[in-house]
Amino acid sequence: MEQNLLALHKYAMGIHNGFFTMSTQRSFFRKNIAEMEGYIPGEQPQTGSYIKLNTNENPYPPSPAILDQLRQSCTDDLRLYPDPSAGSLRSKLSNVFGPSPEHFIVGNGSDELLTIIIRSFAGEKDKIAYAYPTYGYYKPLIDVQGARAVVVDYPDDFSLPPQLSETDARITFIVNPNAPSGTLASNFELAQVAEKVRGILVIDEAYVDFSDGGSIQLIRDFDNVIVVRTMSKSFSLAGMRIGFACASPDLVAGMWKVKEHYNLNRLSLVAAEAALEDIASMRTHAEQICQTRARLTEDLRTLGFFVWDSAANFVLARSPYAPAEDLYNMLRERKILVRYFNQPRLDDCLRISIGTDAEIDAFTKTLREILSS
Amino acid sequence: MEQNLLALHKYAMGIHNGFFTMSTQRSFFRKNIAEMEGYIPGEQPQTGSYIKLNTNENPYPPSPAILDQLRQSCTDDLRLYPDPSAGSLRSKLSNVFGPSPEHFIVGNGSDELLTIIIRSFAGEKDKIAYAYPTYGYYKPLIDVQGARAVVVDYPDDFSLPPQLSETDARITFIVNPNAPSGTLASNFELAQVAEKVRGILVIDEAYVDFSDGGSIQLIRDFDNVIVVRTMSKSFSLAGMRIGFACASPDLVAGMWKVKEHYNLNRLSLVAAEAALEDIASMRTHAEQICQTRARLTEDLRTLGFFVWDSAANFVLARSPYAPAEDLYNMLRERKILVRYFNQPRLDDCLRISIGTDAEIDAFTKTLREILSS
Repeated sequence: MEQNLLALHKYAMGIHNGFFTMSTQRSFFRKNIAEMEGYIPGEQPQTGSYIKLNTNENPYPPSPAILDQLRQSCTDDLRLYPDPSAGSLRSKLSNVFGPSPEHFIVGNGSDELLTIIIRSFAGEKDKIAYAYPTYGYYKPLIDVQGARAVVVDYPDDFSLPPQLSETDARITFIVNPNAPSGTLASNFELAQVAEKVRGILVIDEAYVDFSDGGSIQLIRDFDNVIVVRTMSKSFSLAGMRIGFACASPDLVAGMWKVKEHYNLNRLSLVAAEAALEDIASMRTHAEQICQTRARLTEDLRTLGFFVWDSAANFVLARSPYAPAEDLYNMLRERKILVRYFNQPRLDDCLRISIGTDAEIDAFTKTLREILSS
Repeated sequence: MEQNLLALHKYAMGIHNGFFTMSTQRSFFRKNIAEMEGYIPGEQPQTGSYIKLNTNENPYPPSPAILDQLRQSCTDDLRLYPDPSAGSLRSKLSNVFGPSPEHFIVGNGSDELLTIIIRSFAGEKDKIAYAYPTYGYYKPLIDVQGARAVVVDYPDDFSLPPQLSETDARITFIVNPNAPSGTLASNFELAQVAEKVRGILVIDEAYVDFSDGGSIQLIRDFDNVIVVRTMSKSFSLAGMRIGFACASPDLVAGMWKVKEHYNLNRLSLVAAEAALEDIASMRTHAEQICQTRARLTEDLRTLGFFVWDSAANFVLARSPYAPAEDLYNMLRERKILVRYFNQPRLDDCLRISIGTDAEIDAFTKTLREILSS
């Protein structure tokens, strides 16, 4: 208190060469924030020459047309706010995916859409359900909201557990294809969940372009379904943070109130529109990734790993020999980054993002060397 | 229910040419979301050739060095996630503003930082205080959180009302210079509030570069102060969505848990760093704007308007004659956009963003014509 009065005196006197008089630390945080752990995303080394197979980025570049249009948009107009309605982008989403523009909302990455959904439909102490293991970011998002996570176990084959529809949660999250298993549920299975749950069903399709799935059509039949997508993976635009969600116009209108008005900047809007104008480029790369995935899956199985059938741009491989963490570290020493999760049911596994053929060959070769040494 | 079963049947049979069977509308939204009104930002016309003096954008372009570096960064690297720690940007913020990098957190516009602050420190039903009239976005942000707004009135001269320190709120917001009045409180006045409030004091300095104020030094003396800034106004980067906040490392570390990990995309990070490397360009434009502001203030006063002394890149002018809404509409018909607030205490005012000299001359000329017709 005395220190604060001293500080006040300084400002009264206009003395600005401050000395540090921080008073005894008080805690201002909400209890849920103070107690929660922060999410640790996969490593993004800013230096060094790693083969980076750890955060499911696309090894192929974005369409050159996207980069061209971005360069042309680096103009004085950046002094102006972006279009808060994202009107032009939503028209293009409508053209590509079918539902009219008022079925779409856009986000600063699909992560922002997950936040918008939680804040729209679940308050403090409300239940939010998901099956484990899945995308690790749901738990911190639920913690930030002060909501309650209801966690159901996936069986070992990662088929949808029936209990997931019986939690009475305000929101149920399903990643499809699931991360980190890569496994895909059918639209019939998803429709069964949509039918049964009392709250919102979020189908998080971050990886769907690497599968033959896709459940946007479900929003025509179920007023509680929200399908979330991202351009980070299949469109090779992780660096631009572009996500979108598709749902009934009523759900979208309400979520719009929660969204920050200028959440996509001008260049993200440009990149998103350009990406939708060159779907062919995305498809070509996605097909290549699926071929490489098939090869990697076979090689890992030959080496004795258990590999789940993946419909995503990564595979989850259970190590039969060495502890997975050791393998992770040995790969890392050899400049190959994969993802290791120090968590129940995943700590004997590695998740390997699908790189180029050359990258995956280098990975397999290095892994063989490690295993035979 | 029958409709849903029919829908389920469709997916079981693999029939995908959906017809629209939306069941009777249920409400899934939280009560606070269902009941709140969405924020309506200032108009962003996508077509037409308006003189745009309505959303406080900078009339001068961003530094050419920013645009150059942006263009050079439109590369294949956009396939990779951005640095979630924004490490390089925070080092530059430290160099420019003084406090070490761990005192800084960055946001997708300062609006995102306001959201992060609210979610960090105020839960449902908790009190959040501000003085009215001020930035119109605080109220919807508080509504989204389900928190309680405690609103104190500014006196007509917009000096800080003493009651603002006595609300016992978890968070108190002060915009300084205030919007839409443009008025500036001194650091001594702010320090008095920081000393007196029991919770967090947010000093929102979106417009501070157009004033001789700036309260980042207060974070050295007050463990409850967060200073928020944006590059949208003075740095001419509204289109890029870049904000930052400065506070004690403890506050920043906790807010970091609430922040989405990849909230600034690669190009926003590039633009922000380039902007900090050319502060001189920003200062030149800010000084020009202050000169134009002085001229506009004088002209409006000569015309009989009451104009508050502004330390921002806009002025608030109370109309002595015609209803302000009529003036707004007549200006709009003549392709000049200013801001009109249909709200208590502001509905007899116009807020005019400071444009180029030519734009402000056109505004004054048009206003004179309207008033003399």
